[in-house]
Amino acid sequence: MRIYYSLLFIGIVFFSNANAQESDSVIIKKIYNEALTQSPVYENLRFLSKEIGHRLSGSTGAAAAVEYTRQLMISYDFDTVYLQPVMVPHWVRGGKEAARIVHSSTLGHFEMNCTALGNSLGTGPDGLLGEVIEVQELADVEQLGREKVEGKIIFFNRPMDNTLINTFGAYGGAYDQRGHGHRVAAEYGARGVVIRSLASCIDHFPHAGTISYKPGMETVPAIAISTADAEVLSKELKNDPHLKFFFETNCEMLGETLSYNVIGQLNGSDQNADYIAVGGHLDSWDMGEGAHDDGSGCMQSIDVLRLFKALNIKPKNNIRAVMWMNEENGLRGGRKYAEIARNEKENHLAAIESDRGGFVPTGFTFQTEEEQIWNRIREWEQLFKPYNLYHFKQGGGGVDISPMKDDGPLLIGLMVDPQRYFTLHHSDADVFEAVDKRELELGAASMTALIYLIDKYGIK
Amino acid sequence: MRIYYSLLFIGIVFFSNANAQESDSVIIKKIYNEALTQSPVYENLRFLSKEIGHRLSGSTGAAAAVEYTRQLMISYDFDTVYLQPVMVPHWVRGGKEAARIVHSSTLGHFEMNCTALGNSLGTGPDGLLGEVIEVQELADVEQLGREKVEGKIIFFNRPMDNTLINTFGAYGGAYDQRGHGHRVAAEYGARGVVIRSLASCIDHFPHAGTISYKPGMETVPAIAISTADAEVLSKELKNDPHLKFFFETNCEMLGETLSYNVIGQLNGSDQNADYIAVGGHLDSWDMGEGAHDDGSGCMQSIDVLRLFKALNIKPKNNIRAVMWMNEENGLRGGRKYAEIARNEKENHLAAIESDRGGFVPTGFTFQTEEEQIWNRIREWEQLFKPYNLYHFKQGGGGVDISPMKDDGPLLIGLMVDPQRYFTLHHSDADVFEAVDKRELELGAASMTALIYLIDKYGIK
Repeated sequence: MRIYYSLLFIGIVFFSNANAQESDSVIIKKIYNEALTQSPVYENLRFLSKEIGHRLSGSTGAAAAVEYTRQLMISYDFDTVYLQPVMVPHWVRGGKEAARIVHSSTLGHFEMNCTALGNSLGTGPDGLLGEVIEVQELADVEQLGREKVEGKIIFFNRPMDNTLINTFGAYGGAYDQRGHGHRVAAEYGARGVVIRSLASCIDHFPHAGTISYKPGMETVPAIAISTADAEVLSKELKNDPHLKFFFETNCEMLGETLSYNVIGQLNGSDQNADYIAVGGHLDSWDMGEGAHDDGSGCMQSIDVLRLFKALNIKPKNNIRAVMWMNEENGLRGGRKYAEIARNEKENHLAAIESDRGGFVPTGFTFQTEEEQIWNRIREWEQLFKPYNLYHFKQGGGGVDISPMKDDGPLLIGLMVDPQRYFTLHHSDADVFEAVDKRELELGAASMTALIYLIDKYGIK
Repeated sequence: MRIYYSLLFIGIVFFSNANAQESDSVIIKKIYNEALTQSPVYENLRFLSKEIGHRLSGSTGAAAAVEYTRQLMISYDFDTVYLQPVMVPHWVRGGKEAARIVHSSTLGHFEMNCTALGNSLGTGPDGLLGEVIEVQELADVEQLGREKVEGKIIFFNRPMDNTLINTFGAYGGAYDQRGHGHRVAAEYGARGVVIRSLASCIDHFPHAGTISYKPGMETVPAIAISTADAEVLSKELKNDPHLKFFFETNCEMLGETLSYNVIGQLNGSDQNADYIAVGGHLDSWDMGEGAHDDGSGCMQSIDVLRLFKALNIKPKNNIRAVMWMNEENGLRGGRKYAEIARNEKENHLAAIESDRGGFVPTGFTFQTEEEQIWNRIREWEQLFKPYNLYHFKQGGGGVDISPMKDDGPLLIGLMVDPQRYFTLHHSDADVFEAVDKRELELGAASMTALIYLIDKYGIK
């Protein structure tokens, strides 16, 4: 009898394990099927991109996007939908922007496509006229020294390294010019900064981005010019090192203004339910439509909760879709969310961000070295291979969730194919037409499937 | 002494193996670096797409494309560049095309976007007016029988299955309607055929494609309407099964005309050098620009040889870039190439085709079950993971190389991410702007790397 019971017991365990595994793959298949045939995520992104458009923090577009996503989540009948007030910097581009070679001995007059860098000072309507010194590295400015730099315009022209297959690595490798070039240049007496747009291609779009700026810090007006124009300027400087360059920007920082994170929640069934947050950032640069960056991540995150409801999957934990405000030029929304979660003791199991564009998903990055968590993650990997997600790697979760780093949640980033992102990032090319419906849907489904597993099994 | 010699020998073997492996990965890295920084493949595709445009077999565009690729390969100083004459069917779209619901009780008059199916008969200027029967399967027509089908227009409306992650599977699953619908409908006395475009999305583009047509076979005029229009027609038929539908096409088959495969070759250093062919098809549908289908494959294949030369890699075997003519509506070029290779005893180790669009490469399909070959392929797999090629799978090589199936070469297809292809395939949406530079370059590099390995090690 003892033997029979044991065999029966083994049989039950074996059966239920097999069943559990099968049932996960079946449920995940249902999630993908629903996303690929019934999801409104693409149409929702169309509305955000085309009817609202770009939405820099503090702009009317940002206010419209807050109201749109609030209404959208209410229309899906999520258990709770609310706004989380947060003060954001209100920087405006102001009037006219222009950049030109006023005169070079070989080319004469040449107009360029430019954009003020976010949060930077404007030149005002008189603009700034001067000679240009081209450099590749921040250290080059120090090496040149005050004597050579003083009164000049410093031109940072180090391209992204296109031999890197992961374009985010190439972006990270070139980032210091945009983030810190203005500060180093100001320190050595330069009057202005021009940077080569951080783009993976040679094109005519200026690509915006914020300078890393602390109030009270000494700085100078800073612009980005298109990569095509950067090539021209570099060539002309070789021919005529004393050519005259002019640029005008009328941007200014107006101070702070009230905005919101937008949050929707499905309540978990557990009595002491923890939280799982998934989101993107609702603000964008004031160029293009912020369709990939990060309209995609926002609309996908709302669709995660919609997919749970549509498939009648009842989570044990509270699942939140969070539209963080002000990732692009302040991170105030991400910080506020983390602060409130901490104060309210909302224990987060995981926070997942989609902010690498709405491209075809290839996996996830997990910001952890904990062996126990990796064992769990490795158990799940196979479930995603039928959907071409092969990358389950260590890596950053995302900017908006980074303020939660020390509060316990597993920080996760959706990985997508990175080849196209830096052709459109922060530029007028980031429009709805550049987003593919199936790629967007697959991203929403992938995050839903992962959250389903995290909710069911925990992270360790 | 004996012992020392043995150790020395082991040391040499170990060292040279490690070195061989390292050197492969180093050379492959150089191939990718060169493609991602120096390749003209994107500009070449721009010229083919924008300056020449679409190029159906027998058209002036096809003639221009033949001359362009011939000149291009001569300009790269390949060892041999030549044309291989081949007779191709010369089908023309002729004048006006139109499709409309002439009257339905609920909608009234409604114009639709349509395209004649390739090689099909035209209605002539009087067009064809009749009632419509909607079906999902070829078998539905047989089941309805001659009594119900006779004199009617048969509307095949089975969508592609969007739950399949591999969209080529979804395409294959819906293909019979376009390939054979006209024949089955004619057999049961229908007067015309309308098919729902084979597209993965709901859009307003009609997507062309050829009917499977044998001269002398009884058939009827056949068109595709856009998926959006197919949805309208289906809905209207539910409201008003007797609505009147009209379509007009003026296409005709003009007979045969002379065209060419275009071939460039790097000569191998081996005395009895075998051949490795890589290519795409030079013809396209007479819509859009044939940028993805298959301008990409052609330009990538030329770039494979250019990359060998640029990196000074001297192949042991003869490496050929082949622009096959007439894949879309006849496969005459593929057949001719195989026939001549057979007659001339040009032993092909492998034939590689890129005809799934110029999207980001994900791997290769190999049309073989031979264990010895698979052991070799598995040795190479790791070399491609740094470039995100994870799929080394059994599968078809490609349409143009299929006539070589029984002649010994390993048939290989470049796999690419398939999500976007069937939004633009065979339609006006297949334009240069839909191709990404890095994705195109990565495909060229991936094929070059594989050919480098095949050339060096053989296939078994």
